[in-house]
Amino acid sequence: MPNYRKKDFPTQDARRLLEPGPIVLVSSAHGDHTNIMTMGWYMMMEFTPSLIGCCISEANHSFELVRKSRQCVINIPTVDLAAKAVKIGNCSGRGIDKFAEFGLTPKPGTHVRAPLIEECYANFECRLTDSSWIRKYNVFVFEIVKGHVAVSPKCPKTIHYCGDGEFMISGEHTRRFRKLFRPQML
Amino acid sequence: MPNYRKKDFPTQDARRLLEPGPIVLVSSAHGDHTNIMTMGWYMMMEFTPSLIGCCISEANHSFELVRKSRQCVINIPTVDLAAKAVKIGNCSGRGIDKFAEFGLTPKPGTHVRAPLIEECYANFECRLTDSSWIRKYNVFVFEIVKGHVAVSPKCPKTIHYCGDGEFMISGEHTRRFRKLFRPQML
Repeated sequence: MPNYRKKDFPTQDARRLLEPGPIVLVSSAHGDHTNIMTMGWYMMMEFTPSLIGCCISEANHSFELVRKSRQCVINIPTVDLAAKAVKIGNCSGRGIDKFAEFGLTPKPGTHVRAPLIEECYANFECRLTDSSWIRKYNVFVFEIVKGHVAVSPKCPKTIHYCGDGEFMISGEHTRRFRKLFRPQML
Repeated sequence: MPNYRKKDFPTQDARRLLEPGPIVLVSSAHGDHTNIMTMGWYMMMEFTPSLIGCCISEANHSFELVRKSRQCVINIPTVDLAAKAVKIGNCSGRGIDKFAEFGLTPKPGTHVRAPLIEECYANFECRLTDSSWIRKYNVFVFEIVKGHVAVSPKCPKTIHYCGDGEFMISGEHTRRFRKLFRPQML
């Protein structure tokens, strides 16, 4: 199990880890219930405030926990957690405690009541900022209000879902195209 | 320059190429103008109809072309096009023809007037289906109405943007976790 030492991470830089498109684990809490779901359908929407749009199907137990609590944590697992991430996505939190079931550690956040998943590479504490497309598209818009990211490795091996049970594991990171950017585009 | 032979691809399977999170090239046409922009902020929203939400900043020349024509093509470049994709993202289409400038081939689509980029691995013809969040968030919701995908390779080397001029190139594809899925989740 990974054991990452983390530090505060600027919320406006959340895109650096989320834009490449890894699957994430969404943790939530409402009343006595906590839950975790696996999510692949999300996008960055703004740098400041740091906004992220997320599709959470109403079929998920997490849907009501997030909708009612208006909070969640978006956690980025690395490949060592791939089997757990798949299992989390293939069972319902109704009646089970996924933290206990999958041996994951809930850690208190600083800005939300939803627990961070300690074993993940990064944790982004989120508050629901726009609920107007929840009923229409299952789309939640969150503001990332606090970031915690592992100090190493610099380039985590993330898990990207391709459908039909297939995953792509992140490969080489390169800065060889950086010189082609205009300074204001960086 | 890649030279992909393509076949029709089911629109409900578009997630198989888009959910892993590669940067895409958005081609558009309105009146006499065509344009191409580089995009990293998008998410799948539904299988059937095949919906995709996309953030297109109003600072882009493509914003008005897409908004007025209500169409675009979402093209997936592979790593051989990485330098072109960066250059396309770092100049404006105002006053230049990006197809000519970057030596890319516009190919007619079957469902939209916007041109496909022939050199890309996949092309998804899109129609704007919800414009209600364009002014609020620069978010366009498109229906993917037609897919064209290369017959090989099965696992393209795609380009994933990490911000600050850094890219992640897609790595290993694996089906070793497939047995952990419930059949109805595949």
